[in-house]
Amino acid sequence: MPGFNEAFEIRKYPLPREIEPRAALVKVEMAGVCGTDVHLWKGQLPIPRPIILGHETVGVIEKLGEGLHTDWSGKPLRVGDRITWSAGMRCGHCHFCTVFRLPTRCLNRSAYGISFTSDEAPHFSGGYAEFIYLRPGTAIFGVSDVATEAVIGAGCALVTAIHGVERMGISFGDSVVIQGSGPVGLAALAIAKSSGAAKTIVIGGPAARLELSKAFGADHTIDINEFPNAAVRLEMVREHTAGYGADAVIECVGSPEVVSEGFEMCRDGGKYLVLGHYGDAGSAPINPHVITRKQLTVYGSWASEPRHMGHAIEFLRKQGERFPFGQLVSHRFPLDAAFEALQTTSKWASSKSVVVP
Amino acid sequence: MPGFNEAFEIRKYPLPREIEPRAALVKVEMAGVCGTDVHLWKGQLPIPRPIILGHETVGVIEKLGEGLHTDWSGKPLRVGDRITWSAGMRCGHCHFCTVFRLPTRCLNRSAYGISFTSDEAPHFSGGYAEFIYLRPGTAIFGVSDVATEAVIGAGCALVTAIHGVERMGISFGDSVVIQGSGPVGLAALAIAKSSGAAKTIVIGGPAARLELSKAFGADHTIDINEFPNAAVRLEMVREHTAGYGADAVIECVGSPEVVSEGFEMCRDGGKYLVLGHYGDAGSAPINPHVITRKQLTVYGSWASEPRHMGHAIEFLRKQGERFPFGQLVSHRFPLDAAFEALQTTSKWASSKSVVVP
Amino acid sequence: MPGFNEAFEIRKYPLPREIEPRAALVKVEMAGVCGTDVHLWKGQLPIPRPIILGHETVGVIEKLGEGLHTDWSGKPLRVGDRITWSAGMRCGHCHFCTVFRLPTRCLNRSAYGISFTSDEAPHFSGGYAEFIYLRPGTAIFGVSDVATEAVIGAGCALVTAIHGVERMGISFGDSVVIQGSGPVGLAALAIAKSSGAAKTIVIGGPAARLELSKAFGADHTIDINEFPNAAVRLEMVREHTAGYGADAVIECVGSPEVVSEGFEMCRDGGKYLVLGHYGDAGSAPINPHVITRKQLTVYGSWASEPRHMGHAIEFLRKQGERFPFGQLVSHRFPLDAAFEALQTTSKWASSKSVVVP
Amino acid sequence: MPGFNEAFEIRKYPLPREIEPRAALVKVEMAGVCGTDVHLWKGQLPIPRPIILGHETVGVIEKLGEGLHTDWSGKPLRVGDRITWSAGMRCGHCHFCTVFRLPTRCLNRSAYGISFTSDEAPHFSGGYAEFIYLRPGTAIFGVSDVATEAVIGAGCALVTAIHGVERMGISFGDSVVIQGSGPVGLAALAIAKSSGAAKTIVIGGPAARLELSKAFGADHTIDINEFPNAAVRLEMVREHTAGYGADAVIECVGSPEVVSEGFEMCRDGGKYLVLGHYGDAGSAPINPHVITRKQLTVYGSWASEPRHMGHAIEFLRKQGERFPFGQLVSHRFPLDAAFEALQTTSKWASSKSVVVP
Repeated sequence: MPGFNEAFEIRKYPLPREIEPRAALVKVEMAGVCGTDVHLWKGQLPIPRPIILGHETVGVIEKLGEGLHTDWSGKPLRVGDRITWSAGMRCGHCHFCTVFRLPTRCLNRSAYGISFTSDEAPHFSGGYAEFIYLRPGTAIFGVSDVATEAVIGAGCALVTAIHGVERMGISFGDSVVIQGSGPVGLAALAIAKSSGAAKTIVIGGPAARLELSKAFGADHTIDINEFPNAAVRLEMVREHTAGYGADAVIECVGSPEVVSEGFEMCRDGGKYLVLGHYGDAGSAPINPHVITRKQLTVYGSWASEPRHMGHAIEFLRKQGERFPFGQLVSHRFPLDAAFEALQTTSKWASSKSVVVP
Repeated sequence: MPGFNEAFEIRKYPLPREIEPRAALVKVEMAGVCGTDVHLWKGQLPIPRPIILGHETVGVIEKLGEGLHTDWSGKPLRVGDRITWSAGMRCGHCHFCTVFRLPTRCLNRSAYGISFTSDEAPHFSGGYAEFIYLRPGTAIFGVSDVATEAVIGAGCALVTAIHGVERMGISFGDSVVIQGSGPVGLAALAIAKSSGAAKTIVIGGPAARLELSKAFGADHTIDINEFPNAAVRLEMVREHTAGYGADAVIECVGSPEVVSEGFEMCRDGGKYLVLGHYGDAGSAPINPHVITRKQLTVYGSWASEPRHMGHAIEFLRKQGERFPFGQLVSHRFPLDAAFEALQTTSKWASSKSVVVP
Repeated sequence: MPGFNEAFEIRKYPLPREIEPRAALVKVEMAGVCGTDVHLWKGQLPIPRPIILGHETVGVIEKLGEGLHTDWSGKPLRVGDRITWSAGMRCGHCHFCTVFRLPTRCLNRSAYGISFTSDEAPHFSGGYAEFIYLRPGTAIFGVSDVATEAVIGAGCALVTAIHGVERMGISFGDSVVIQGSGPVGLAALAIAKSSGAAKTIVIGGPAARLELSKAFGADHTIDINEFPNAAVRLEMVREHTAGYGADAVIECVGSPEVVSEGFEMCRDGGKYLVLGHYGDAGSAPINPHVITRKQLTVYGSWASEPRHMGHAIEFLRKQGERFPFGQLVSHRFPLDAAFEALQTTSKWASSKSVVVP
Repeated sequence: MPGFNEAFEIRKYPLPREIEPRAALVKVEMAGVCGTDVHLWKGQLPIPRPIILGHETVGVIEKLGEGLHTDWSGKPLRVGDRITWSAGMRCGHCHFCTVFRLPTRCLNRSAYGISFTSDEAPHFSGGYAEFIYLRPGTAIFGVSDVATEAVIGAGCALVTAIHGVERMGISFGDSVVIQGSGPVGLAALAIAKSSGAAKTIVIGGPAARLELSKAFGADHTIDINEFPNAAVRLEMVREHTAGYGADAVIECVGSPEVVSEGFEMCRDGGKYLVLGHYGDAGSAPINPHVITRKQLTVYGSWASEPRHMGHAIEFLRKQGERFPFGQLVSHRFPLDAAFEALQTTSKWASSKSVVVP
């Protein structure tokens, strides 16, 4: 990506001659196109250019730097292994890393596909490329026994959901409403069900997405096209929750308007997780009295930490059949059509587009 | 109070001839006029009429029903003892009482001075009267060693703050911003300081209130009349918190507009407590992305439970010198001037008005 | 049961002529024999005699008292419905019910099959009988769509495990060791897996029990007969947990000796739940330094509350195929062989014995 | 200290010629003798020798390495400033630092006065010396407005107590029993009172220590010499807690025998913190059934993190008058009498011995 709102170009850079200790050179096998990539392309975040986008990636180890013998979870790493990694890296020394225990807000945080210009060595710092160079300290995970499609189909959405549900907590037996049936909504559904939710209600659309939600085990779905009236949707949620509202509501839409509706869907004493607002979509009217009167707790969670990726890989390994994230990969593009892949995602024309170099 | 927006009348009702088991007849010594009473008088909540208002009361036991030997905390009760009590009563049987553990939202909740018409026996169910009849199950607390002015000066505000801070939690060493310097703000300040807050910043006005905040131990105060610009106030908070924002922010204003400002005053990973929105003051624009990006947790808490009253009495007993709530009582009215007391509170012309029958 | 350590007798009592409001008369369909019944029979708890034992019961509604229209979860109740109920009842008024929020330790707690002598009306207060009279306030649950065997097979063990895991909390991705493969161990395994545990290791025996653990989804089992050396077992747990020990360990054995071993199986910073010590089995040497050095958190949980029964029924309804608790019912006895049922349980000769009147 | 159980020697080492970036050379002003030093001297932990002991130190900056402009809390640092620092350092990269969020158990943890032999450069790594060389990454805190005696008098005990109380949590209004009236007990008392405890009971001795506890604000003290019978002490605690036992009990003794007694002093549903068992004092009989029946939660906490030191300094700065830790410093020794200082501490002959080079 040479600049904001510009078509992609293919550029050639020299591969690094030497691999630093604990670094790795990786041949990219598949890279996911994330909604965030569209935001980055539109210039909604101040990133350096030119840049190789791509922060959801699976590849094969080409070279291993000295001292890199095991992955993040302690399993052996060898040349030829198929791996993925946490895109974000923390410094480990700032106040957020050491005092606030909030590495996702590390003052020196950097991320593959977001923070590094391709004009500077080691050049290869994004997934939309033939190779990527993993710097020392990257949280690498072997995925030899997990399908590449599953890892990329789950993508950012799964680690985001794991982090968010960890923040809010789901108690065994909880009823959970999920606002939104996109990738984050599906991931939140899978994690809620696997964390003890006894009843799950997904509100979203279009119909195909809700079918997928049912395949993932949603007890009820509410189609916003069929029920465009918020009061009707609220009534439906109450019917499914003995009149009280849900124990927990997870927002996976990204539009500020849905938050008020979601507060009403919580039972008194319930929990609300703002999970879909990674991008800044502006404000909407919200009544704080509702938080007081219903004695709600509202949680936000930002990005994810390496341990969430570790949990995600383990989850895909064990629960892959129950939650077939691989099926989300709907459109494949070669590297020279990466811009087309981005456009497809931008137009919501695909379930999940991927680049296969 | 014969009806909404009508002047009070003095009516005579017969005292109950017999006291039920575990009930009590109490001679009122002092009753606080709360901001909520003004809301009730304006008809903002559907209460029965005619009614004797008054839900913050201290009195002397005139008669004790059979079986009532001890107060809520287990101390002996005798005729002639000075007492106060929790205004709200829960049913103990509904889903909120037994399953959700949320007695403040009990479906059958009732409260002295709010739920009972004076036209029905036992008539005496509010504090603006010579007597009050305490039904069986009322959470009574002996206050023989606590000044009546302290109990009434602290009033609802203190138990509300104790409940709210319990909900949010304050960790030892936290920096805490308090938005608002009214009774709830002062109470939140006292409880935050007593729960381990290392630094407290009160934002409010007028100047006299901020002086009182300093007397209560606020480390810094920000006068909204002197600094009407929200961006300037935010900058001041950041200067007092090493640039990060506060660990916790407590809203004690009741205007929805302050919530957005308060979110910005939290550090990333911080906590926000909506405490001043007991009344419904409508909506204001709020950006949910801020909750996500800053990884905030937002808490609401409603009313209080008897144990909060127990903690409050103990607190006044022990920390009365450090936090002189009794000084808040500024205007005293005889029973036949109770309406004048309400008007004084309504016009914000008093620090705390009380009725002394 | 006429007295401690005495054979059971069949006695005839008159059925109540009238059913109090909100009470119910129930025809017993099946009653589980619990290990606790053996302890009661041996006189290890001070209970009244004669008594009808039996606190795990399913029956059919014969008569409904006035005002009892719905079960605890709000579903309609009708004569002829198959139901179960929480054996324990709380008073709702004592300090434990209202202040400490600890109804399982209610000062006036009573339980069917434990607290009432059959010599006093309404006589029918235990499960080993043709009828049982449910007093007003009993937490009843309709089980029309759950097999009776599943409800009784799960029995006390399931609600105990749900309560315990709620107390300790399991985070998504946790590795969990379960010490013990009896009914409580199996229930803890099912609930841990359904609450987000990524890896489960069951330590116990005999082999048939461990096979059942595997059918319930245990990732690894360790047979104490095959590996009688605690150091070897510890090493095996470490191998399964990347050398660190488990995130959580759940004790389901009931022998104090296993606690020290379990502490060592926790990773530093891990959690330990004492779940199997409902009975008092005495002391064993424990080193508190281990709690400090490993920065452990150790939880106890006592009995259960009605909401745990609600979660259990919902769980059996939805996850009945994945966790076939009904298969645990191994021995059936008619009412006049109830004593034989108790003896069979006492000798550990059955997986689960039940009385079918 | 040339070797275990050997008298100290004074040795001369060359001061480092250059200060690394972000490191500092500090002239020692005062170093505390901690009970742990006695354990180290006796060889109870495998440390390198020869070694300069001393992990509680205040000194004055002699030289500052490049890039070290501010202390841990962001305040400016200049040559000549009086400072203290966290003795322990974490690696920031191991599983404990990044995944388990447990830096106190960092696999590569090192500590001044414990981990470095004086035979290797930079030689000066302990407090019992004229100088100490602070490596890059040390958590330094300016103490220009806090008395040196207060910092050293509080020492390890205060940060240990802050960490422990953070782990367990004290709710506003809690009743708290503190077992032990040594430095850790006094520190726990101060932190409990400052975290919202409404009632504090200290059990210990001798009488002078209990007098100091009263000066620190203990509501009740129980002298173990006066009341050597555990059952009597338990009864006294119950009398002070309305018969229920305490909401929280903090163990600050270090003998395993007191744990069982402490469990009984907790109310049902209460909390217990094992705080005094930094050293391994072996096992004692404990009954796990008590944890279950009383539904206890038992916490351990190990050492402390830099943020606890930050809270400690802030606490001494603000609450120094209320809790006069400086008064604990009872015996001062010059550097060549450091061994004598250790012997004095070893014999429990001092309240707090310090080395003043």
